[in-house]
Amino acid sequence: MAQQIADQRDVEFALFEQMEFEKLCEHEKFADFNKKMINMIISEARQLAIKEMLPTQEEGDSGCVFDNGVVKVPKSFHKVYELYKEGEWLAMSDDPDECGGGGMPHTLSLVANEFFIGGNVSFMLYNGLTHGAAKLVEHFGTEEQKRLFLKKMMSAEWAGTMLLTEPEAGSDVGALTTSATKNDDGTYSITGNKIFISGGEHDLTDNIIHPVLARIEGAPEGTRGISLFLVPKYRVNDDGSLGEFNDVVCTGIEEKMGLHGNATASLTLGSKGQCIGTLLGTENKGMSGMFVMMNEARQLVGQQGFCVATASYLHALNYARERVQGADIKAPEAGGVPIINHPDVKRQLLLMKSYIEGMRSLIYYSGTCSDTIAVSENAEEIEQTQKIIEILTPIIKGYITDKAWEVCSHGVQIYGGYGYTKEYPVEQLLRDSRILMIYEGTNGIQALDLLNRKMRMDGGKPFMDFLSRIQKTITEAKGVAGMEAFTELLTEVLTAFQDMVVILGQAGMSDKAMNVFAQATPLLEVTGDLSFGWMLLWRAMVATKALEKGAKKKDIDFYEGQVKTAEFFFNTVLPVALGKINAINRLNGAAVDISDASFGGK
Amino acid sequence: MAQQIADQRDVEFALFEQMEFEKLCEHEKFADFNKKMINMIISEARQLAIKEMLPTQEEGDSGCVFDNGVVKVPKSFHKVYELYKEGEWLAMSDDPDECGGGGMPHTLSLVANEFFIGGNVSFMLYNGLTHGAAKLVEHFGTEEQKRLFLKKMMSAEWAGTMLLTEPEAGSDVGALTTSATKNDDGTYSITGNKIFISGGEHDLTDNIIHPVLARIEGAPEGTRGISLFLVPKYRVNDDGSLGEFNDVVCTGIEEKMGLHGNATASLTLGSKGQCIGTLLGTENKGMSGMFVMMNEARQLVGQQGFCVATASYLHALNYARERVQGADIKAPEAGGVPIINHPDVKRQLLLMKSYIEGMRSLIYYSGTCSDTIAVSENAEEIEQTQKIIEILTPIIKGYITDKAWEVCSHGVQIYGGYGYTKEYPVEQLLRDSRILMIYEGTNGIQALDLLNRKMRMDGGKPFMDFLSRIQKTITEAKGVAGMEAFTELLTEVLTAFQDMVVILGQAGMSDKAMNVFAQATPLLEVTGDLSFGWMLLWRAMVATKALEKGAKKKDIDFYEGQVKTAEFFFNTVLPVALGKINAINRLNGAAVDISDASFGGK
Repeated sequence: MAQQIADQRDVEFALFEQMEFEKLCEHEKFADFNKKMINMIISEARQLAIKEMLPTQEEGDSGCVFDNGVVKVPKSFHKVYELYKEGEWLAMSDDPDECGGGGMPHTLSLVANEFFIGGNVSFMLYNGLTHGAAKLVEHFGTEEQKRLFLKKMMSAEWAGTMLLTEPEAGSDVGALTTSATKNDDGTYSITGNKIFISGGEHDLTDNIIHPVLARIEGAPEGTRGISLFLVPKYRVNDDGSLGEFNDVVCTGIEEKMGLHGNATASLTLGSKGQCIGTLLGTENKGMSGMFVMMNEARQLVGQQGFCVATASYLHALNYARERVQGADIKAPEAGGVPIINHPDVKRQLLLMKSYIEGMRSLIYYSGTCSDTIAVSENAEEIEQTQKIIEILTPIIKGYITDKAWEVCSHGVQIYGGYGYTKEYPVEQLLRDSRILMIYEGTNGIQALDLLNRKMRMDGGKPFMDFLSRIQKTITEAKGVAGMEAFTELLTEVLTAFQDMVVILGQAGMSDKAMNVFAQATPLLEVTGDLSFGWMLLWRAMVATKALEKGAKKKDIDFYEGQVKTAEFFFNTVLPVALGKINAINRLNGAAVDISDASFGGK
Repeated sequence: MAQQIADQRDVEFALFEQMEFEKLCEHEKFADFNKKMINMIISEARQLAIKEMLPTQEEGDSGCVFDNGVVKVPKSFHKVYELYKEGEWLAMSDDPDECGGGGMPHTLSLVANEFFIGGNVSFMLYNGLTHGAAKLVEHFGTEEQKRLFLKKMMSAEWAGTMLLTEPEAGSDVGALTTSATKNDDGTYSITGNKIFISGGEHDLTDNIIHPVLARIEGAPEGTRGISLFLVPKYRVNDDGSLGEFNDVVCTGIEEKMGLHGNATASLTLGSKGQCIGTLLGTENKGMSGMFVMMNEARQLVGQQGFCVATASYLHALNYARERVQGADIKAPEAGGVPIINHPDVKRQLLLMKSYIEGMRSLIYYSGTCSDTIAVSENAEEIEQTQKIIEILTPIIKGYITDKAWEVCSHGVQIYGGYGYTKEYPVEQLLRDSRILMIYEGTNGIQALDLLNRKMRMDGGKPFMDFLSRIQKTITEAKGVAGMEAFTELLTEVLTAFQDMVVILGQAGMSDKAMNVFAQATPLLEVTGDLSFGWMLLWRAMVATKALEKGAKKKDIDFYEGQVKTAEFFFNTVLPVALGKINAINRLNGAAVDISDASFGGK
């Protein structure tokens, strides 16, 4: 039977064979999670996703309804929300004591979420936001704030959001004007308007807890004067019961291209002077507080991209196997064949496959980094690994969502005219995927983060560590027969990449410094290409070793597919990556030098 | 004031300065069209587009209404249809005598259509189809068919369509099953089901004339047994008045991602045995008949891509000039600046600009080829030029619509979160643009057309002629100071491209022939990159010459913009094109060799 949402065999391959996840779980912290338990959890998540979430996806596309401050989510979301809550999935990888969580390894939660998000990305965004908000309470909350909010959020009884954006403060968060005035009892009165709040208002839960960025009266301008507040929709009494409405009014929801199942709300805080919040963390340190959660939030968006892309691939693959159209080029007289037999369709499918498998591996790799940190007692290892996660974050957020958009577009293309209609899910997946390149920091911001912060942090040492991990895989693959062409080409790309890093570094200190900024996006792109080359070489190596050992028929097909996927990616994407590196090295300044008037349009 | 739809200065530049359109119009056939007249026509078209068509675009997005066989177009379409009809725009470049047309040069009609299509692509698709259908009548119709249909279609009194696709016959037209049975009076009774018929049913006109591909009983299978019929929605009496309903029943319209203003109809012909058509052209020669019109239809789709892209660029440019967000990197303390000052935004805008200007020039160039044919009396020149148009067609259809999709996506990105909402037109333009890569032959089909037909026709001579035209521009540019870096790089790309053509040719006759098919899409892409490089070099050369001669302040900005655009494209896109050529030259067969099972998903 055709797989749905994600290819289970590939999930297992990436998790157990490539990442050797079982080894990681040998640590006593994860002693409960043996292979049997892991598989059971994945299977349960998969069942819930396929049986309950996936069927809500299409209805979700019809959107939320806003009426006089109230937002109703698509009807079918309520049942699946209850099931998700009952399954205690939200806090599956959180601390059992403090959060009431399941304590499972982060990587395993990524796998479960892969099925959930692939089942319905709009629905799961409510939960992703709740989790992010709860983590803020866990990290920065007082005992009192934790007592009142933490477990109720982690159990999904209450939802959470993130109130950053304002009409004049999008990418430039520091421009925000929402204000906080300290009251005598230590609480703050909040006043302001927030927009583009995913899950900002809905009827899934009795209460919604909003972490809000605001400026305390008299605080410095810009990001240095921003504080973080916890602002519930309904105030919470000391016994945990709901109190009065907290003057957080939803004034409307956006009409969007997609992601219709998730309400994007405009919220007005304190228009009647009755919006009360409590400080979360330290005064004027709101931005650095947010940054602590940024990696999780941004990686979640990257995963959303991966999930819609992998779903689109499986739909397109299945369609290509069933849709008969045109004869085989090699046997034109034999009549129509399924379109998967046509070279250009196969090329598109293999391109999609190589991207989604690169995505899966890179996301799991980042997950194992988190788990390594969780079990390590070596401070140096912890710090190094943390830095790797920070380097991976803009790649996972930016590159993966860029490629997800491409993959989803190929998904539509393979369906031909049918792909443009609402009859098949690939159409919705493409629309849903477009926001991912924008929210949680546009992909342009991700590129600047990579260029200007991640590549340069600690004098470039962590970035060199990142590149040396790629080198390590190459070295390992050199010992495996059949990998020669791959290791040679990846070495060529890695060497060219390293030379480029030097060129960029030198130019950054020269009069061409501005030109370097114009290379941020191309840089992110080649870093992504290189990272996927790394992951696909690793996959091909593991598969080749498995083939050498001898494998079952079905596994032989799978492993051979791994080698073919790498072969395709290395021969079609990597030579182009070299071209991109050459383009970056030219450090051309046309995009910086051109005058406003020369753009025309006036 | 901000330009709308298309940048008028660039239209004039490409038309008069680059293509030297005035010279072409010196021919007596176009003697009526001096520069003053040309500008008047463009200005009139622009006014109609901006004042009347553009305001209908948003309402058009709300879609057509289907009810019991009747399709109602968006209300505002009716008024603008009347204005378009009154202006006699449909047949502006057609023969005055036979068609009642305006006899203007084809290139000029492209410019007028650029504004119209940019104003509302869904609306203009009705007219594009009518024109295509009318051309079929003009080319293949009997005197009787012409008398009854031609002028009524060319005047837009009646509409036209194109009935090719069936549920099981999309890219594979030869699989169609609609049948035609000859009646005693020489007419045919038509029976079958057609889908995805753009403008297949609507209330803009009293009658709709459908050219229909069908198979006469007993005709051969496949494309060799297909004939073309003229099937009106209402039969037409000998005096031209409307007769009975012709049993062409609309059974529904598609719900699509975009292009909502144009009804995509499913039509059932002859379910009551009452659908009568007349043969258009020769029995069993329907496909070659359709191919005669294919260049026009496919180039129209390319132009649609160009028009939505140029509209998206102007919106994004204007927004980037107005939207204040973030400080200048060079002066972080000076506060917020319009985002057009940020290098990554400028880079995106310049990428969009380089693509749309490449599109405009290539489309106008193809237009001037048509006009050259129209005025030439040299049979060899006519044939050569016709072949150039045939080579340009898959590039204009395939490459331009691929890039239009990219440009429209950048348009959304520049708006940030706002771009994802329906508040700004870039969102609709992106959705509208997605079908263009699919209809009139998917872009995969275009790539195969280029690889397998256009590159190889007449032993490759016309394709060499195409490349020699690029060489000619390079040679000319070599004599212009400041063009050295450009001519050098384009020479490098052209040489690499020529070597690649040889490699592909040889491989096509070897055991790697199948691998070549997997390179079709990458080939189309580099052919497009090369063509745009050609057009942008040409533009930069013309602009540089104009600067040398001395130009007005506003023109200086414009001309400098031309040089900067070429500089950007040459330094960022062309080095990547070289990487793509290297990838093609590897002729890797992974996409061909991989087994069905290795794709996974089962």
